[in-house]
Amino acid sequence: MKDDCIFCKLANGIFDTNIIYEDDTFTVILDASPANPGHALILPKEHYQDVFDIDEEVLGKAMKLAKRVAARQLEVLKCDGVNIIQNNKEAAGQSVLHYHLHVIPRYKDDGQKMLWKPNTVTDEVQKEMKNKLFFK
Amino acid sequence: MKDDCIFCKLANGIFDTNIIYEDDTFTVILDASPANPGHALILPKEHYQDVFDIDEEVLGKAMKLAKRVAARQLEVLKCDGVNIIQNNKEAAGQSVLHYHLHVIPRYKDDGQKMLWKPNTVTDEVQKEMKNKLFFK
Repeated sequence: MKDDCIFCKLANGIFDTNIIYEDDTFTVILDASPANPGHALILPKEHYQDVFDIDEEVLGKAMKLAKRVAARQLEVLKCDGVNIIQNNKEAAGQSVLHYHLHVIPRYKDDGQKMLWKPNTVTDEVQKEMKNKLFFK
Repeated sequence: MKDDCIFCKLANGIFDTNIIYEDDTFTVILDASPANPGHALILPKEHYQDVFDIDEEVLGKAMKLAKRVAARQLEVLKCDGVNIIQNNKEAAGQSVLHYHLHVIPRYKDDGQKMLWKPNTVTDEVQKEMKNKLFFK
C-alpha cells in the first residue's frame, strides 16, 4: 500500500465505500461521481500506478473481472451498452495514480459524449506510424 | 470469420491495412480515423461481437497485448499518456460489432475530450446500485 493513495485506502478497507465485489486481488467500488449510476471502478488491492507498471497476471485478471461486472450491469440495470475505459497518466485523464478500470453502464441518449474527435491522416502519416510502431 | 464483418477481413488479411503487430490470435492495426496518429486497434482474428461474447482467455490476452502496444507508443511516439478503451454495443459508441480494443496515444493539450460528464448521485441511489450490483 502507498501511504498517500486514496485508492489504496478504498481498496483495502481503510476508508469505507460502496463495494460491489471483492476477492483477494481486487475491490470493485462505485464511482462517487459516476457517468451514470452503477459506474464501477475495478481497483487492485496492491498499488500499481498504471498499465505500464501493473503486473501482467493482475492485468489479465482485471479484464476478466471487467467482463463479469459488465455482464452484471447489463443483466441488473438493463443498460443498453457498457464502456470499459482505462486511462494512463494525467494527459490521458487519469486523475488518481493507482491503476483502475472504469466499467460504465450506458443508455441510449444518456447525454454522455466520451468519444474522441476522429481525424483524417495522410497515407504518409499512417506509413510513418506503421514503421515506428511495428513490433514482434 | 463472419462474412459481412469488416474487422474479420482486416484481421485476417482479406483486406490490406496498416498492421503493426500480428500473432496467432490477434492483429493490431492503425485506426483509419485516429484520435491521434498511432491510434491502434487490437482485433482478435476470430469473430466475437463484444465483451459479453468474447472467450475469457482471449480477453485476458488482449489486455496483456494492450500493455505492450501502450508501452511501444510511449517509447516510440514519446506521448504523454495512453487511453485503453473498449466499447460494447451501439449505445456505448461501438461502431463495428467485432470486439476491439482502442489503444490511443495522448498528448497534453491535444484537444481530445473523451471523458464523461461526472454526475452527483444521492446516497440513496448509491445504496440502491450497491444492492443491485453486488455479486460474489
